[in-house]
Amino acid sequence: MKVGLIGLGKMGLNLGSNLIDHNHELVVYDINSSAVREMERCGAKGTSSLLELVKSLEQPRIIWIMVPHQVVDSVIFDIAPFLNSGDIVIEAGNSYYKESISRYHKLKKFGVSFLDVGTSGGIEGARNGACYMVGGDPEAWEAVEPLFQDTAVDNGYLYAGRRGSGHFLKMVHNGIEYGMMAAIGEGFELLEKSEFDYDYEEVARVWNNGSVIRSWLMDLTQNAFSKDAKLEDIKGVMHSSGEGKWTIDTALDLQTATPVIALSLLMRYRSLEEDTFTGKVVAALRNEFGGHVVEKIKN
Amino acid sequence: MKVGLIGLGKMGLNLGSNLIDHNHELVVYDINSSAVREMERCGAKGTSSLLELVKSLEQPRIIWIMVPHQVVDSVIFDIAPFLNSGDIVIEAGNSYYKESISRYHKLKKFGVSFLDVGTSGGIEGARNGACYMVGGDPEAWEAVEPLFQDTAVDNGYLYAGRRGSGHFLKMVHNGIEYGMMAAIGEGFELLEKSEFDYDYEEVARVWNNGSVIRSWLMDLTQNAFSKDAKLEDIKGVMHSSGEGKWTIDTALDLQTATPVIALSLLMRYRSLEEDTFTGKVVAALRNEFGGHVVEKIKN
Amino acid sequence: MKVGLIGLGKMGLNLGSNLIDHNHELVVYDINSSAVREMERCGAKGTSSLLELVKSLEQPRIIWIMVPHQVVDSVIFDIAPFLNSGDIVIEAGNSYYKESISRYHKLKKFGVSFLDVGTSGGIEGARNGACYMVGGDPEAWEAVEPLFQDTAVDNGYLYAGRRGSGHFLKMVHNGIEYGMMAAIGEGFELLEKSEFDYDYEEVARVWNNGSVIRSWLMDLTQNAFSKDAKLEDIKGVMHSSGEGKWTIDTALDLQTATPVIALSLLMRYRSLEEDTFTGKVVAALRNEFGGHVVEKIKN
Amino acid sequence: MKVGLIGLGKMGLNLGSNLIDHNHELVVYDINSSAVREMERCGAKGTSSLLELVKSLEQPRIIWIMVPHQVVDSVIFDIAPFLNSGDIVIEAGNSYYKESISRYHKLKKFGVSFLDVGTSGGIEGARNGACYMVGGDPEAWEAVEPLFQDTAVDNGYLYAGRRGSGHFLKMVHNGIEYGMMAAIGEGFELLEKSEFDYDYEEVARVWNNGSVIRSWLMDLTQNAFSKDAKLEDIKGVMHSSGEGKWTIDTALDLQTATPVIALSLLMRYRSLEEDTFTGKVVAALRNEFGGHVVEKIKN
Repeated sequence: MKVGLIGLGKMGLNLGSNLIDHNHELVVYDINSSAVREMERCGAKGTSSLLELVKSLEQPRIIWIMVPHQVVDSVIFDIAPFLNSGDIVIEAGNSYYKESISRYHKLKKFGVSFLDVGTSGGIEGARNGACYMVGGDPEAWEAVEPLFQDTAVDNGYLYAGRRGSGHFLKMVHNGIEYGMMAAIGEGFELLEKSEFDYDYEEVARVWNNGSVIRSWLMDLTQNAFSKDAKLEDIKGVMHSSGEGKWTIDTALDLQTATPVIALSLLMRYRSLEEDTFTGKVVAALRNEFGGHVVEKIKN
Repeated sequence: MKVGLIGLGKMGLNLGSNLIDHNHELVVYDINSSAVREMERCGAKGTSSLLELVKSLEQPRIIWIMVPHQVVDSVIFDIAPFLNSGDIVIEAGNSYYKESISRYHKLKKFGVSFLDVGTSGGIEGARNGACYMVGGDPEAWEAVEPLFQDTAVDNGYLYAGRRGSGHFLKMVHNGIEYGMMAAIGEGFELLEKSEFDYDYEEVARVWNNGSVIRSWLMDLTQNAFSKDAKLEDIKGVMHSSGEGKWTIDTALDLQTATPVIALSLLMRYRSLEEDTFTGKVVAALRNEFGGHVVEKIKN
Repeated sequence: MKVGLIGLGKMGLNLGSNLIDHNHELVVYDINSSAVREMERCGAKGTSSLLELVKSLEQPRIIWIMVPHQVVDSVIFDIAPFLNSGDIVIEAGNSYYKESISRYHKLKKFGVSFLDVGTSGGIEGARNGACYMVGGDPEAWEAVEPLFQDTAVDNGYLYAGRRGSGHFLKMVHNGIEYGMMAAIGEGFELLEKSEFDYDYEEVARVWNNGSVIRSWLMDLTQNAFSKDAKLEDIKGVMHSSGEGKWTIDTALDLQTATPVIALSLLMRYRSLEEDTFTGKVVAALRNEFGGHVVEKIKN
Repeated sequence: MKVGLIGLGKMGLNLGSNLIDHNHELVVYDINSSAVREMERCGAKGTSSLLELVKSLEQPRIIWIMVPHQVVDSVIFDIAPFLNSGDIVIEAGNSYYKESISRYHKLKKFGVSFLDVGTSGGIEGARNGACYMVGGDPEAWEAVEPLFQDTAVDNGYLYAGRRGSGHFLKMVHNGIEYGMMAAIGEGFELLEKSEFDYDYEEVARVWNNGSVIRSWLMDLTQNAFSKDAKLEDIKGVMHSSGEGKWTIDTALDLQTATPVIALSLLMRYRSLEEDTFTGKVVAALRNEFGGHVVEKIKN
């Protein structure tokens, strides 16, 4: 099939190669022209503007957007005037499902179908077999299913239901991921503080063979320890890119108790701080009522 | 090798068959004589007392204990007087590592080696390939390694270090397992409360193919939903058998912040209650200061 | 001073009486005409529409809104066309500070000043001495300060700064309240589950005299137990009216780790459920890998 | 009454003065002889050994121990041989209730009564009016009640029941205190991170007058901010002295969900670390699957 791919970051480049491997015809655009050049070398047709990309596709067009969620609206705003009824927009980045629902309705007015697609599996998955969760109208889905069939790992895609359901599923997937990663991290922290002297790469290896917690994340844990046995060079600062927060925003909206995922998120925030105001207040209070010594900041 | 296997519950029976498959010679005992009969039919020599079991083995004996952790001390107390220097006791159940260290030292006085072995992989693993984490003296370990090599899945065993390190590792493994399971559960609860209508078996299937959270637990989640699509027949009461509690006991001892594992445990406790006193107090207080209506218990 | 008071619920009625006690002149309105009658009997001038209320006040008008946060926009929408430059609107209910900021800007366009006022102290406080946290323009504040001085407890009001700062402060106050109440509740739950046989009213009494945790909430706890020694008639269902959720929404926006307040909120949500899907999934998984028995729902 | 007071730290010295103010006759001992001198200047009889202290008292003796919980057993071990049937030992420090129960039984064998007393109110309370929670035999309690009546604040003591119930109550009191302090700290952290510019001393002041969260801890918060408006000199390191940990140990033993108190403890542990291994693992994993940049430790 012929696809216009917008966004050639880590995910977009790898997905592009994956699509080309499966004999799809690619027209690509990115604000970074060197990424466009790179895709051209793989056989894609590069373009130098969103307009040129849209014009290079025949109706009904299939446009696959793979950009940071902060930019999606701006991309859609730019291309929407040039789209026609029957065109299909696939948004396969990490967007908040409520925004996807709103985008679905906006494009619907132009007769354009919008599919919200959660993509998992990381960079490697994008290249060699991703995992997709798709929401939107079933007719649009059927029209583009081959793209997902070809670039997903076996059994690795699901048409999940109406608009929003794809990104909702991906959001919850990431929430689970946050919880799993935190659980693994806490486990290794206990090993690190214990009286024993474990070889963490070996621990991850054995846990990944036959144990109840074997998982791709444990596989990656083994990889990480194989490169840096005690992670001595790495700071424990845990950034986050939004999906964990949206999961908890949603949990609050739905009045759902999700303490494990919530704490995995809050501990990420905690890791961004060297010291906390909470800590200062509690330390000051302990001093006030019990005369407990306060640690002073040295200047 | 010739092994005395004590304890023929779900785990012991399957491990026994696994050992026999790999041509080990088994002498077995369990208080439940029908389990002994079952093992005899698989080729084991049954005994009708712990003493008989010990006497049926030649020195240096290898005795593998696979009983609930509450019973381990009683078994050891019963067999210790008949053991000789050089004998090796393998304790492969779920015991608290501090007790394992104490057992190691007690048996050491008799010249008997004690290996604390964490066994993971569930019943299926015990039968077809388990995952082992072993602590104890290296000489003892070397003498029995073939038993583990034969009954573990490939790459599925680790000699982790000195006494206690095996059960400590298994304990932390279970702590991680608690966290992972809670994260998965919370994720599906969000799906259940959402505006969407997901097919959970399909969700688990797609998450298990190519996604970041693919794992054996997700595989089992798919199995569970294949049997009961909405888990309508199952009560959400989450029992626990000790390892999660020990993990948090240990976290407190080591002054380690493990909020995700801790909450996965506390929510299990919460699930044992229909109503809570905390809730009653908070509801009463809201009524006191704000006149908020309290729900009354109907008689 | 002459004040138009809109909203005669539990809080509005008591505040109205408090204002009248301090010789302020009240014009009142509520959709519930019997509440209007009640205020008339206390000396207020009742009106039968928002328009009549506005018209009954001389410019510059002072209008005090005390309605549920869901209704504030509708009230403002209805009165705004009749307000004049120089009028002051006091919104003293529990509103989300972001909405207060937006209301401030909307009214500003008409030259109308908007003060966002957090009111604490419950019903009793509204009647006999409340606690106020006020945000908005300092000139508007100075014009109405006497109203707060008169109806607050000694030292019980604060001009906190620009628009939004009053409701933000009240929101955080309620977040702290959630945490404190949960801590008290959890403490009594531990007493209830202990081997001891405490008299909870006596416990609350002693904790309220000389201890570190003496507080108004502990005072109310004593009251509650004096009425129902074991809270046997009360269900532990903990409803919430929004402020705790906003606190955590805000914590997430500010990337702030507030686990104690977050958990106090999530446990309220948990209390709304008899059973959880999380629990079902975890119970099913335990059964899958370990053959642990699942509790079945009886029909 | 005549009392032997062992332990003249911050609490012991102030309690001693309080007892003397109320015309009790004091014999005192501390390993720190200058503390003994200080008490002598207040009218106590100093001694230079535990034996001398015991010998200075007539039977039936009343001995009040006010030492760190780690030292209690050693003190009791030293004095027990010299005690007689009918003597009463008051242990008013912060001990784990299980140890108090064991001490009760040990002393019982000698005919000596043991009262476990939780003391709250901090240093100031010890001096001017403390809060006491007392467990032990009722006869022993009645014999010494005047000491508590005299040195407690009005209504500030409770005979809670049998052995252990006093220290259990104090332990839970401290658990609640941990939760309350954390809630207050988190609230101020939200203020600190907000867009507003609050005067924290003023905030604590207004919250302490008429609000739902008015409390002694809020009073102390105001004090703390009055000395250091932004707590700029204080590190947010939150030490703990055992009672919070015991509360959670107990919650786990009783299978009680106490997430708020648990998290207040775990965040104290977190505050002891500059960086965490959990964080390193999570950061490494994010890099593994998503290519997310890891912050490196600079050397």
